[in-house]
Amino acid sequence: MAGPQRTNGRRILLTAIRKSSPIARIDLATLTGISRATVTTVTAELLGAGLIGEVAGEGDKSGRGRPRVDLKIEGSAHLVAGVKVSNRSLSLVLIDFEGKQIAEFDFPISDQVFTPNALALALYDGLAAMMQTVGKTVKHLSGVGIGMPGIVDVQRGFVHWSPSLSERNVHLRAEIEQILSIPVFLDNDANLVAMAEKQFGVGRDAKDFIVVTIESGVGMGIVINNEIYRGTRGCGAEFGHTKVQLDGALCRCGQRGCLEAYVADYALLREAQLLGESASDATPEQKIESLLQKVKNGDPVAANIVNRAGRMFAMGLANIVNIFDPQLIILAGERMQFDHLYAQDVLESIKNSIVQVDQSPPEVVIHRWDDLMWAKGAAGYALEGVEEAAVVQVTAQNA
Amino acid sequence: MAGPQRTNGRRILLTAIRKSSPIARIDLATLTGISRATVTTVTAELLGAGLIGEVAGEGDKSGRGRPRVDLKIEGSAHLVAGVKVSNRSLSLVLIDFEGKQIAEFDFPISDQVFTPNALALALYDGLAAMMQTVGKTVKHLSGVGIGMPGIVDVQRGFVHWSPSLSERNVHLRAEIEQILSIPVFLDNDANLVAMAEKQFGVGRDAKDFIVVTIESGVGMGIVINNEIYRGTRGCGAEFGHTKVQLDGALCRCGQRGCLEAYVADYALLREAQLLGESASDATPEQKIESLLQKVKNGDPVAANIVNRAGRMFAMGLANIVNIFDPQLIILAGERMQFDHLYAQDVLESIKNSIVQVDQSPPEVVIHRWDDLMWAKGAAGYALEGVEEAAVVQVTAQNA
Repeated sequence: MAGPQRTNGRRILLTAIRKSSPIARIDLATLTGISRATVTTVTAELLGAGLIGEVAGEGDKSGRGRPRVDLKIEGSAHLVAGVKVSNRSLSLVLIDFEGKQIAEFDFPISDQVFTPNALALALYDGLAAMMQTVGKTVKHLSGVGIGMPGIVDVQRGFVHWSPSLSERNVHLRAEIEQILSIPVFLDNDANLVAMAEKQFGVGRDAKDFIVVTIESGVGMGIVINNEIYRGTRGCGAEFGHTKVQLDGALCRCGQRGCLEAYVADYALLREAQLLGESASDATPEQKIESLLQKVKNGDPVAANIVNRAGRMFAMGLANIVNIFDPQLIILAGERMQFDHLYAQDVLESIKNSIVQVDQSPPEVVIHRWDDLMWAKGAAGYALEGVEEAAVVQVTAQNA
Repeated sequence: MAGPQRTNGRRILLTAIRKSSPIARIDLATLTGISRATVTTVTAELLGAGLIGEVAGEGDKSGRGRPRVDLKIEGSAHLVAGVKVSNRSLSLVLIDFEGKQIAEFDFPISDQVFTPNALALALYDGLAAMMQTVGKTVKHLSGVGIGMPGIVDVQRGFVHWSPSLSERNVHLRAEIEQILSIPVFLDNDANLVAMAEKQFGVGRDAKDFIVVTIESGVGMGIVINNEIYRGTRGCGAEFGHTKVQLDGALCRCGQRGCLEAYVADYALLREAQLLGESASDATPEQKIESLLQKVKNGDPVAANIVNRAGRMFAMGLANIVNIFDPQLIILAGERMQFDHLYAQDVLESIKNSIVQVDQSPPEVVIHRWDDLMWAKGAAGYALEGVEEAAVVQVTAQNA
C-alpha cells in the first residue's frame, strides 16, 4: 500500500477494533477486507504505539490448536475530557481511549456571559478540579472537546455568536488552547448532542437523523450519512431561527417570526405578562412553571399561550421532515419544563403537516438527559480527534 | 487487489478517464494513486470491453521517444436517453457514452394525467420517434432516465404521488421497464435538475447546493457532498409543502399553509378572482400574465397579491439557508412567468431573514433553461447507471 492508503488502513483497523473489540486478527481481515499480512503488520504498529492491547480470546471451537489472542483498544493510551458550557455550570466528563467514563464533575460558574479569556480560565479551573479527583492534572489530557451554544465554525474554531460570550466573532479555540496547552475540539453543543446520540444514544442505528435540543433556545444537530452536517459557513441547523410567521413575533436575534420567538422561555413569558407573571420577583424558570401550572388549572389564556407554542413547534418540525425526510427525530432536553412541547397532541400535529405517503412518518423519540450527556458528546468528539492524531503519529513513526 | 477492490479500481479509473479525457495511463496512475501495473491491466480490460478508446496524444516535450497514447471514453459504447415528463409534452434527449448529445425531440402529449400503462406507452412512442431520427430503435438504448414531478422513491422505482399519474403508489419503474424492455432510471424531476446542474450546469464547482425549481409547483433538489440527498423514504426536499403560515391558505395537497399555496399559479389565481381574472376563458398562463401586467400598470391589489407571494417565497428560501447553509442556491425555472419570485427585492429579503454572521450569505443564482435541460439531467442520471452496469459486467468477464 502507498502512504495515504497505509494511513487509511491504520484508521480502518483501529475503528474496526473499537467497534468490535475484542476481536481476533483473522476476523479483522474478514471484516475490513484488508489482507491478513497487512493486518498483522499494522496491528503490530498499533500495539507498539500502545493504542491497542492483546487479551486472551476464547479458544477455537475444536478446543485444539493455539489459544486465540484478541485485540482491544488500550484504554490507558489517552485521557480525553468533554465539557458542556451552560449558563449555570460547566459539566465535565473524563473518558479513556476506550471511551470508558473515568470521572465526572460539575463546576459552578457565577457568570452567564464571559469574555473569551475568562471562559478559557474557567475551563482550565473546571478541568483541573476534575483531574484532581483522579490524582492527575490538565497536562495529562490528550484533548478536550467543548460544546458551546451559538454559531460555531468548526473548521476555524471560530464562534460567530454565542449567548455565553460577551463578544462576537471570536477565535475561541485558539484562545482556549493558549490557556490549556492541549488540543481543543470546539463545536456547537447541539451538534455534540447529535454526536453523543450517534455514538452511544438513541441514534446508534440510524444513518440520517435529527436531534432537536431545547434549553433557553432551540438547537438542532443534523446527521447525514452517519456524519454531522455543518453547512458551508458552519451556520446550518439554525432551527430556532427558521421563520414560522411572516412579519411575526420579535426574536432576540432581532428578526421577526423566528421559531424561538414563539417557543423559548422569553417568548412565553412575554405573553404571560398579561397574566401578571412579570410582576413577581420569581426567576424565569419559576415563572414558566407558574404558567404551566395555570394551564393545568384550566386557565384559558395560559392555555392559549402554551398551545400556540406547541403548534408552532410542530409546524417547524414538520418542515424539517418535509425537507430532510430523516429516519428518526430525537427530541432531547434536560428539563421537564418543555413537556408542553413534547406533548402527544404536538407530536400528532407534526404527522398532519408532513407530506403524506404510504409509509410511516419518521419516528419521533423523546430523550431526556442531563448536562453530562452533552459533555459526553463533547468528549466523544475530542476522542475522534485524538485518535486521528494518534494514527497520523503512528504513520510518521513507521514511514 | 481483491474482488470488490478490483471493481472499485475499474470504477475509479473509468470516472477519472471521463473527467480528464484524453489522458495518458501514467497520468491516470498519478491522479488516482492506483499503481501503474494495475492501471495497465484495468485499462486493457476496459479497452477490450469497448468502453474506452485510444487516441494519439501529444508527444513528450523532448520530441523524442515513443508517441504518447491517450485514453478517452468510447462514445459509441452505449446510447442513453433522458426524458422529462411535463404536462404539455415529453422532452427527450439522446446522448452517447461520452455524454455527447446525439439528438433531441419534443413529443407532444394530449393528456396531462396518465395511467401508469398509458404513460409507459407514451414514453415508448416518444423514444421510438426520437430514435427514428437517428435511424435506430428503442432496442439500441442501454438505458433511459425519466424525471417525474411528484414524490418518487428512487430505490424502489416507486411513485408515491405525481400530478402526471391518475393513481397513487405505483411501481412505475417496473411498469415502464415491462413496455420498454431496457433499464429504466426513475427520479423526481427536481433531483434530476440538481444532477444536471452538478454535471454540466451552475453547480459544477459546488459541493453542497440546492436547486429550487418552479413550474406549476415548487420543487427542490438537494446536493450534499456532491450527491443528491433523497431522504429516508424518498420524500425529502418537499420544499413546496413546507409550512409558511400556521393554519394558512389551503394547498392542493389538502393541508394548510404550504409554500405552494402562496406562490403557485393556482394560489395567485385564487386571489386574482377578486380582480375578475376568473371570468374570462383564458388559460391559467394567460391569467397569470394578465395579473403580472396589472402589477406593472400599478394596480395596488394585483401588487398586493404578487408581493406576498414573493415575500413568502423569500421566507421559505431563508429557512432553507438557516437549515442547510449551502454554498449556492440555484433558482431554476423555464418560464419568465416567475420573474416576480426572482426579483431583486425578493432576493434582498432572503438576506434579511437568515442568521447573520461575518461571512457573505450563500450565492443565489438564477438559471433559466428549457425542458431539454431537465431531460439532459435524466440522461446523465441514466448514464451513471449504465456505466455502473458496464463496470460490473467487465468485472464478471475478467473474474
